[in-house]
Formats: sequence, C-alpha cells, structure tokens
Amino acid sequence: MQAAAAAAALYYNKEKKIMIKAGIMGSTGYAGGELARLLLQREDVEIKWYGSRSYVDQTYASVFQNMFQITEDTCKDDNMKELAREVDVIFTATPQGFCASLMNDEILSGTKVIDLSADYRIKDVAVYETWYKMEHKTPQYLKEAVYGLPELNRDKIKNARLIANPGCYPTCSTLSVYPLVKEGLIDPNTLIIDAKSGTSGAGRGAKVDNLYCEVNENIKAYGVGVHRHTPEIEEQLSYAAGKPVTISFTPHLVPMNRGILVTAYASLTKETSYEEVKAVYDKYYEKEYFVRVLDKDVTPQTKWVEGSNFVDVNFKIDPRTNRVIMMGAMDNLVKGAAGQAVQNMNLLFGLPENKGLKLVPMFP
Amino acid sequence: MQAAAAAAALYYNKEKKIMIKAGIMGSTGYAGGELARLLLQREDVEIKWYGSRSYVDQTYASVFQNMFQITEDTCKDDNMKELAREVDVIFTATPQGFCASLMNDEILSGTKVIDLSADYRIKDVAVYETWYKMEHKTPQYLKEAVYGLPELNRDKIKNARLIANPGCYPTCSTLSVYPLVKEGLIDPNTLIIDAKSGTSGAGRGAKVDNLYCEVNENIKAYGVGVHRHTPEIEEQLSYAAGKPVTISFTPHLVPMNRGILVTAYASLTKETSYEEVKAVYDKYYEKEYFVRVLDKDVTPQTKWVEGSNFVDVNFKIDPRTNRVIMMGAMDNLVKGAAGQAVQNMNLLFGLPENKGLKLVPMFP
Amino acid sequence: MQAAAAAAALYYNKEKKIMIKAGIMGSTGYAGGELARLLLQREDVEIKWYGSRSYVDQTYASVFQNMFQITEDTCKDDNMKELAREVDVIFTATPQGFCASLMNDEILSGTKVIDLSADYRIKDVAVYETWYKMEHKTPQYLKEAVYGLPELNRDKIKNARLIANPGCYPTCSTLSVYPLVKEGLIDPNTLIIDAKSGTSGAGRGAKVDNLYCEVNENIKAYGVGVHRHTPEIEEQLSYAAGKPVTISFTPHLVPMNRGILVTAYASLTKETSYEEVKAVYDKYYEKEYFVRVLDKDVTPQTKWVEGSNFVDVNFKIDPRTNRVIMMGAMDNLVKGAAGQAVQNMNLLFGLPENKGLKLVPMFP
Amino acid sequence: MQAAAAAAALYYNKEKKIMIKAGIMGSTGYAGGELARLLLQREDVEIKWYGSRSYVDQTYASVFQNMFQITEDTCKDDNMKELAREVDVIFTATPQGFCASLMNDEILSGTKVIDLSADYRIKDVAVYETWYKMEHKTPQYLKEAVYGLPELNRDKIKNARLIANPGCYPTCSTLSVYPLVKEGLIDPNTLIIDAKSGTSGAGRGAKVDNLYCEVNENIKAYGVGVHRHTPEIEEQLSYAAGKPVTISFTPHLVPMNRGILVTAYASLTKETSYEEVKAVYDKYYEKEYFVRVLDKDVTPQTKWVEGSNFVDVNFKIDPRTNRVIMMGAMDNLVKGAAGQAVQNMNLLFGLPENKGLKLVPMFP
Repeated sequence: MQAAAAAAALYYNKEKKIMIKAGIMGSTGYAGGELARLLLQREDVEIKWYGSRSYVDQTYASVFQNMFQITEDTCKDDNMKELAREVDVIFTATPQGFCASLMNDEILSGTKVIDLSADYRIKDVAVYETWYKMEHKTPQYLKEAVYGLPELNRDKIKNARLIANPGCYPTCSTLSVYPLVKEGLIDPNTLIIDAKSGTSGAGRGAKVDNLYCEVNENIKAYGVGVHRHTPEIEEQLSYAAGKPVTISFTPHLVPMNRGILVTAYASLTKETSYEEVKAVYDKYYEKEYFVRVLDKDVTPQTKWVEGSNFVDVNFKIDPRTNRVIMMGAMDNLVKGAAGQAVQNMNLLFGLPENKGLKLVPMFP
Repeated sequence: MQAAAAAAALYYNKEKKIMIKAGIMGSTGYAGGELARLLLQREDVEIKWYGSRSYVDQTYASVFQNMFQITEDTCKDDNMKELAREVDVIFTATPQGFCASLMNDEILSGTKVIDLSADYRIKDVAVYETWYKMEHKTPQYLKEAVYGLPELNRDKIKNARLIANPGCYPTCSTLSVYPLVKEGLIDPNTLIIDAKSGTSGAGRGAKVDNLYCEVNENIKAYGVGVHRHTPEIEEQLSYAAGKPVTISFTPHLVPMNRGILVTAYASLTKETSYEEVKAVYDKYYEKEYFVRVLDKDVTPQTKWVEGSNFVDVNFKIDPRTNRVIMMGAMDNLVKGAAGQAVQNMNLLFGLPENKGLKLVPMFP
Repeated sequence: MQAAAAAAALYYNKEKKIMIKAGIMGSTGYAGGELARLLLQREDVEIKWYGSRSYVDQTYASVFQNMFQITEDTCKDDNMKELAREVDVIFTATPQGFCASLMNDEILSGTKVIDLSADYRIKDVAVYETWYKMEHKTPQYLKEAVYGLPELNRDKIKNARLIANPGCYPTCSTLSVYPLVKEGLIDPNTLIIDAKSGTSGAGRGAKVDNLYCEVNENIKAYGVGVHRHTPEIEEQLSYAAGKPVTISFTPHLVPMNRGILVTAYASLTKETSYEEVKAVYDKYYEKEYFVRVLDKDVTPQTKWVEGSNFVDVNFKIDPRTNRVIMMGAMDNLVKGAAGQAVQNMNLLFGLPENKGLKLVPMFP
Repeated sequence: MQAAAAAAALYYNKEKKIMIKAGIMGSTGYAGGELARLLLQREDVEIKWYGSRSYVDQTYASVFQNMFQITEDTCKDDNMKELAREVDVIFTATPQGFCASLMNDEILSGTKVIDLSADYRIKDVAVYETWYKMEHKTPQYLKEAVYGLPELNRDKIKNARLIANPGCYPTCSTLSVYPLVKEGLIDPNTLIIDAKSGTSGAGRGAKVDNLYCEVNENIKAYGVGVHRHTPEIEEQLSYAAGKPVTISFTPHLVPMNRGILVTAYASLTKETSYEEVKAVYDKYYEKEYFVRVLDKDVTPQTKWVEGSNFVDVNFKIDPRTNRVIMMGAMDNLVKGAAGQAVQNMNLLFGLPENKGLKLVPMFP
C-alpha cells in the first residue's frame, strides 16, 4: 500500500489536489464512451487523449452527442507510444490483440496500463491463442499483468503496472459463484453458467446482426461451446478451487442496452442449508462495497444495477436436485468494463476504491 | 382415425363445408385473443362465444382493438354449461382451477374441451396439488384427459373428449430434448433447463411487476426452483425415459412481447458425434410440420418463429464437458398456447393438422 | 375490369387454378422479405425469383431464417431483363433509381411491374430530381405509371403495366387526411404532418445509426424539412384539393420494429361538428376493406394493425384552435409497402382486392 | 439573493457543512424514486422522510431495489404537517389535488415546499378547475407560488416559500420555443406542439394500458385536445408573448422508459435566416448550464440527455412553408421532474444551481 500512496503523491497539482492525467485508446466504442462518462464527472482526473481509429480529428462530442458542451476535445489516433509520455494511465478499450501488439518496456515504465481487452487476462498463452485464434505478440508481459478483479486481487492490483481488466461475463460469473467454489460447497466441474447480456456488449460496429430490428423482440444463444470468456472464467475458478475446473458457459443476446444476468447451476457437495450458504457469501462480500448479497428470495435484476458499479448476487437451494442456483446481475459497461477499470485506477493511485463510483443505479 | 373422420362428418353445413362452432372461455386474455386471431382467419370455424369475467357486455373489439370490423360480437360471461350446448368445442384459457371446478359428464358428452390451463396436464393429483397449491375439484377426469402435445400423442388426441393443452415452457422444453431422452443419449437426471420468455406469458393482469417500465431494459429469473411447469416437464420426460426424471428448471422474464427460448444442458451417456445426434432429432421430427431441426451451427432465435406455430430446435455437443446443449425457440402464444390448441382441434375434428396454421413467421 | 379479367385468364394453370409467377428484386431487404411472407402463404402465386445484390447464391432461408423449410430457393442477381421473360409480375424493392435505370419497353410489354421504390411516384421529373438528388433515367414512363394507392386510383391500377407503389409515409398521411382535403373541410396549406415510424423503415443496411443500442430507448426527428416523401404527399393532396398544396412534414424514428403513426393538424375552413367530419370519412372509407374509421375518441395505435394491411384513422376537432387533428396508424411493411403491392397485384390480375390480405393484426 | 444566502446559513451543521433535511411525499412513484436517486448522491442533503400511501412500513429499498444497501429507511405515511416540523424542504410528488388539500400557513412558515404536482402551476383557478376537473382547495396560495422554471424565473424562485415545479411537457415545450415567442419571431397562435414521451411519465400505477405488452412495439396519441399540460404551456407562453396564446398540444406514448421529445411548428412573422434564429436562442441560453443549443442540423435525441438535467434544443427553418420547426429533448424524470426540483432546491438554499446535477447523460 505504501507504494500506491507514493505513486499517488506524484499526481498532486499546484492546489494540492491530486490530478491524474488519463488517456483512452478506443474511446469511441461503448466501453470507451462509458469510461469518458465516469471520468468526466471527476475533479481529480483529466482526460488528455481520446483515441480512435475511425473518428480521428472529429470532436468527441460529435461521436457521443451526450458529451456536447461537456468536452470540446477532438479524437486523436491510437498512438500508444506518444500517449505513454503524456499521461499517468492509459485505458485500452481496443480490439483483441491490439494492446498486446504495442506493449513494450518503455510504455510500462512511463505509465500505468489498464487493458480492457482480453490480451493479458489468460496466463497460459497457448490457451489464449487457441480460443482467440490469434498469435499473442507480447507474451513476456503475461506474468506481470494482474487480473483486475479487485474483490479477488485487491493487493496485487495496487502495485501493478499492467492491469488485465476482466471481461464482462467473467466478472459477473466469477463473483456469482466464487464463494461457493472457494469454500468447496459445490463441485466446480458440475458448473453450468447460462448468461444473458444486453446488446451494448456486442459493440458499436455496424453489423446486420446488431441492427435494431434484428435484436429487438428476439433472444438467442451465441458462441455456444466456443465463447472466449469460457477459459477466463475457468482460470479464475481453478485458482479458487485449487484444481482445474471445466465448465459449460453459454451467453445469450437480450433486447436491452445494458446489463448482464448470470444464472449458474452446480451440484452441492453435501446437504447444505440456506443459512450456511448465505454465511459463505457474507464472509466474502459483507465488506465489499460493490457486491450486494440480496435478501432471501429476492432475485437479481439487471435494471436494479443499471448505470452503477454494483453486482447483485443471490442463490437458491433446490433440494430436489441437490443443486444450488446462483444468480448475479450487473451493468456490463460499468462493473463489466469501464467502472471496474476506474475501480482499478483508484487502487493503482492510492485513492478510495469507490471514488467516483458511488453511483445510485438508475430506475426505471 | 375413423372415429375422427366420423366426428368431422357431423360438422358439415348446408354447402357441404365443414363448420365448427367454437367457444372461448377467458377470451380477453392474451392466449384467448390469440385463439380469436387464429380462428377468425378460418372459413370453417365460427366463434360463437367470447367468454370473459372482466369485460361482459363489452364488444370484443373494444377489448382487442385489432379485431375492429373483424368481429362485432360482445363478450359473454364464462358459463361453461350453456356453452357446452351451443358449441362443438370449448377452449378454456382461464386461470388454474377454473376449468376443473366446472367440469362434468354433461359437458364432456356434449362437446370437446381443450383446456389451456394446467388443470388436466398432470396425472398425479397429489403432484398437482403440491405445486399449484390448490385442491383439484374433478380429479376423476385426469385419467381420461389427453396431454395435447401432438408430436408425442397424436393418436390419442384424435379420439379424446378432453385435451390438456400443454404449458408454454413444457412444450418448448419437451420438444427440445425429447429425442435424446427417448433414445437414451443423455442422462435425464443431469438435465438443466434454462428458459427465457417474453412478457405476454405473464398475462394481461394489471400488476406493477408487469408494467412497461419494470420489464423494459431488464432481465430476471423468477420462480426459481418452484415454477409450476417443472413437474409437467418431468412427467413427460419420465414417460420418454421410462423412469422417473428430476430436472432443474429456471424461467426468466425477457423484455419482448412474444417468444420462448429454451437452453437445456445434459450429460451425454457416451461419446457421440454430431451426426448421431442429428440423426436422432431427424428420426423424430423429419416428418413433423411444426418442428424444424435447424442446420448445423444455426441457433434458434425467437424472432424467426414469431407469430407461427413452429418450434425451431438445434443442439451443440461440447466435448470438453461431455455435455450436449439443446436449444428450442417458439412463440409462446402460438405453439405454446393458442396455435397448439388449434392443432389439437384440427386433430379432434379429422382435419389436416396444420390447417389454418401454415403461418409464415413475421420478421422483423 | 374486362381487361383485368382477361389478363387474369392467362394465368390459369392445368387444374384451372390461377397461378401467378412472381419475381422479387431486392428480396433480401425488409420489404422484400415481407413480400415473400405474404406471397408464400398463397396458393395462387409462385415466387420464381428471389433477387438480391448482396446474397446471390445463398439460400433465401439463410438470409431470412423464418423461411426455413418454407422455401428452399436460392437468391439470384437482380437481372430484370431475364426476369421479365420468366414471370408475370416483378416487384422491385430496390434502392431509388435502380428500377428506373433498367426500365424499357421490352420489360413492360412482357410483364407487369410493381415498383416499391420512388422512381415513378412523382409525375414532375424536376421535382423528383430536386428531392432525390439524382437524374431520372427513364422519365418517358412517368406518364404511364399509375400511383398505386387503390383507395384513390383503383380503376387506373387495374389496367396498368407499371405501378408506382406509394411510400410508407405518403400512404398513411394521404389516407389520414384525404377526405377532408377532397371535401374542402380543411385548408390544405395549413397542414402539418408529424409522423412516427418503426425502425424497419430504415432498411436492413448495416449502419451505426440503426444499431440496436442507438435506436433503443431513443426518439428523434430526421430529415426535417427535406424528407423525400414530402413532395409525394403534396402531389396527391394537390390532386385532391384541385390546387397546389404545400405542407410541413416531419418524420421521427421510434424504437419499435413496425408501424407508422401520423398525427396531422390543419385549420378547419368553417366551424364543423364531429358528425359532419365523421360523415366525410365514412363517405370515402365505409366500403374500403383496409381503411378502418375508428369509433369516436378511440385513437389509432400502431400495435392494433401490426402485421395486417389495415390503416386505422380517426380525428379530433379542437374548437379552441379551430383545428382538426387527424390520426392514422398502419404497418409500414404491409400497407406501407408489401401489402399494398400485393393489393395492387390483386387488382392487376382481376382477383379480389383483399385476397391473401385478410390478415388479423397480431396482438400483442 | 441575500435572502437566499441568509436562508442557506441556517443549514450549516457542526462541521460547518451545509446539511439540508428533506422530505419526499409520494416517494414511491417514479418521480419520487428519481428524487431519492439524486439526493442520495449528495453529501449536503439528508432525506428524513420517505412518504408513501401504498408502502407504509416497508423498507424503501424493497420498493426500489436499486436503493438496496444505499438507504435502510422505511416508508412513512404522507403526513405533511408533521413533516413540515422535521425538514427544511418538502418535495410533493403526489397526485393532483393532494398537496393543495393539505397546504396551510403553518406548513409554509416552517419549511419550503416544492410541489411536483400541478396544484400551483396555473394562476387562474378557473382554468385549473376546468382542465383538472377538481376543486382547488387552497387557491389563496396561487398568487404566492412561484412557477419553478429557473431559466425563466430564477430570481423569484430564490426567495419563494412555495415552488410549483413545472410539468414535464411544459418544461420541454416552453424551453424549446420560448426565445422565438419572446422575441416575436413566430406567431404564437400558429404554434403546434407534437410531443412524445417515454412511459415513466405515465406513473407506476398498475393499469392494463401501461403493461409491457400494451406499450411495447406501439405508439399512440392520447389526451388529444384535452391534455392538462396545455393551459400550463399557454400561460407561460402568454407571459412571453405579452398577450394570450392558444396552441395545439398533442402528447404521444413511446415505447421507452425515459425521455420527452418536442417537435413544435410555428409560422415565422417575417423572413428570417438561420443565423438570426440561432442568435436568439443563444441570447437566452448561452449562459444556461442545462440548456444546450445544438449545432446546425444536429437534431435533439432523447438518448443523448438520458439521466441528466439537460434540455437539448435546436430548430430548422422551412422556407417552403415559412415555418420554423423547433425541437427539444430532455429526460422527463430529471429536468421534467426531480432534477428540476433539485435545481429549484439549490436556488432556494443559495447553492450553486447545478450542484449535484452535473450528471453526464448515460449512453447507450
């Protein structure tokens, strides 16, 4: 923690206010826009660089009209090298492989990097290359990179240079089931995770499949058996279980903008009461600001966390099948992307972890 | 089939056209309205009775304005006894327990009854009373009632007097997994069914939970571990498996009007190829007009069946977990309620099973 | 009508059933898909050609998965010349200018053409070129082309070779206000038409503006003051008024798949009672199958006509401002495109005008 | 302003931090919930009373689950008299007539009241009673009440005891057209306001008309010619015009949760250029934090202001008709209700007007 405090000391400005200079690569996608929304509401952070490949030289507010009169900045290209000299922290909300292709020692010695892509999430480069079907350009940084799920890795994050910001599904899935895996209450190899996501998770690219008329009034599974978030979840749960874990993971596309709901099924290792399971969830989450263990029989709903960094979790024991159904809901763009990235930034700079993130969910 | 043909002969009118007189109890709910939509497009059926509890003496078109200038009839009360004297077939789209509370020999000797409620779906009255938390008023008809899933029970339906029209989730769930259970390719007790439904399944009652602003931009599970459709699915799968089956079933509410998607997970009993599983689906469904086994890697989507009586099914083998993921999509108001009821009516009256049901799904 | 009957006689097949061979150019857009939906449900029409620019050689059912097992045909290119030799009627659901660029005498002497684009809707080529910002390649056919709004031009349509199928907004706008313009009850130059459309009207092209997340939970005006449907509406209303009419027309994009709602405002030329205005609407629409004049104080809603060829209209007199508010609702893909095209086809071939179009709107 | 500063001085707490004690009557409706969302994010306001008629003694977080672990308070009844003794400001988000029926001198001498209902918006009690069809119980306070639209009435608000918080449609309508009426650029009696609202404006009452399946995929006008917000808009525009103004106003229900879009049409009093009109908008709004006059040809969209207190306005001159089309977009629950109430509270207590309201709109 001392290192973090020391790091923070560097960022005080003349009026003795901390002032973090931040750059966003890929700022014109949905996660990039959400980062801007969160950072522009802070007085201690200044966005110095709105990176983009498609909108260079256009004002950021013309790309995201919600920002009109809030920022007058113009999009620049995604030049990581120059960016590293100008800012204290770089957020990369860029396509898979892009961040890894640019990473080098100079960048990491000059700035913190919070990578919202998947490039440094999976420690085993072979697993990454198999699921992502691309070569990893800088596997030498995999060991150093810290998986940025604060509820599991808080201390490591504080002193890291390179944060692998978790995927949206893995964040919600892992937090929903972690306590029961860790405590051995469920057999992790019986885990089936059925996840449902709003459409912002599909990105802002112009594809027929993501047109309003194709998504609206529709639900479908996709990536069945082959979704790239599968090994990421498995790796985290393997650490928790202390042994290799293989799961079934199926994502679905839901006609809504934001939100992920996870419904997870697993066999209990022994007969267990509601109170025992509740105690295990409380053990891990009672002090976590962003994880809310709901009251008995209240099911998580994505609408109740929209716009916030909360993850709502709960569970139901089914004595007929000796299974437990675990549920989690969060906003995929906040806790599943930009909010978690800011949470990591706060940790990196020695700030209160929930600074700028005490957002009350918006309803309706 | 002879009996059915003979039955049909009774309904020819003067111009030698068959003319079935139908009555709908509970015609002002969503399933009732869908029945009216389907029957009003037919030239061989006449709706003689629009039953209702809430809208008696109002024109049907004032309740469902889409029917304006299509029918000028007025809602009558839900008088089953009188109805039985006037019509050839009664559809009961009424709350649980209502149909059972009125049933008697006089009604069944005078008319056919297709019950869209759950009253006669479950053979074991104790199971019914446990899950539905109400006394069954006429269990003496449970044995006679035929479970109206034509793809499984076609021959029995043709000669029945009382049809228990299946529930929406059970229809989609059963058809999605039936071939693999029947052929022993999966262990039915590993079955986990994660289902997602549009909001019309929640009915037209004025409840805060079903308001636009509560459902829109939201997804949640409900009835976790206790949903009433669970024992109905289990009973049908038990027949297929030849032994008792216990499953996990979790429904979810999705922000769309129509459609059910089922994602079902089960362990394969042995290593099995795509071709083997495909052959089993084809064995059962190749000749079924309403069940479409999709091409490899095409996932069912509710939008592709909207407004039609189709069920689209497909599957994916996951060799990592030795599980198979089975998927099915249908319109909950058509194949999940009114369409299936009409399919049963066609069978009861010796008509082509798909008469009036060759509806091309509406897209977008 | 004799000509039409004679024309129809040509299309009887061996079993003395009429059989119209149809081709669709631009069959893979939303209007093209809706044409296929409507025509595939008919026994007297055969689709011989699914034209496309983007999906040549792919099965039509892979482009519109709702058609799976309903048609096994494959998309061909948009070759109008060859098509004219093979079919009795060509529907062109193609981009502006495309149909006009291919039209010639050979095509028109060999087949009927129903053009769903705007190429032949506006008689004055200068107006067309000003608003559409492109050169008209075959203005010599403008005079011959018949504006295919059957409620206004029924007799001319019957004997036409080339039908200019009206635009979606013009259909709904014109039918909503026509009787009052024709009878001089309103001053047409005070007309303000505020229209709202579902997103299928924006087409199936992959554009960021039409992505789910951009349209959902949003409403906006577009093309303010410059929308191309303005002169089309003005031309039709000028005929009705017997003098040039200039209007304000503003379309809006609404987060729903289908439907257009028109709210039109105009000053009454004199004090007028509800009964007088109602009588005028009835005079023009009482015998029209597809135009439903609603009961007093019932406002048109797009949901009540979804999937059907109906236009629901109604009005409200505002004595405070001496204005009348006229409202109309229809399905933009049916009465606003494909349904109206089929209505025109029926007229061209001497068939009952509502053949295959007696669709009960789908609710919910 | 001195009075306001003095007033504010009363609310400093021990640590010399201002601390306003607030009560919300009608806290369990959508506007009440939004007030809670905005106030709970502030460190200088404490909500002392969550009033409700339907949920007394239930925890507020059980009514609005988004508030879970954010407030642990319980709903109390709507006792205004007691409330006036306990808090510095009362927000009444209650049905029409309720606030007026309870108002008295004791309340007003003990606390500030910001009434989100319509009870004190219209100065002429006869107009109120005609449009609202109820007797006004305390017309004696109409003169004192200040219409709380800060952009028009800032100075009066600062010293008021009783604020009539404007209606959602009047806020958006008035701000969209005010500069042009005030400067005489348009003839106000030609004004036609066509407004579109998300469904949260319809409230949280359990009505069939507001069910998800009735609103979704649908658009309709309602209250045509008789909507209660009409005289409120007319009154404000009459002040601006310096003469009585009569307008046409038609609201529409749109399938989205939040947002109001106004499209307003009026005849220009003389030929006017874009630059002239733009200059007039800028004259009134350049210094207004919450009104954003968009760049040329950028149309307001509700999504770009969602969750924020902004109103985005713009216009288009149509030389063909000599009309100007004025457009405005805002969030009906924020600037149209709770946000504006907080803006008024800030003014009442001598705080920066945008305190706690510098919310970046959420997109998507």
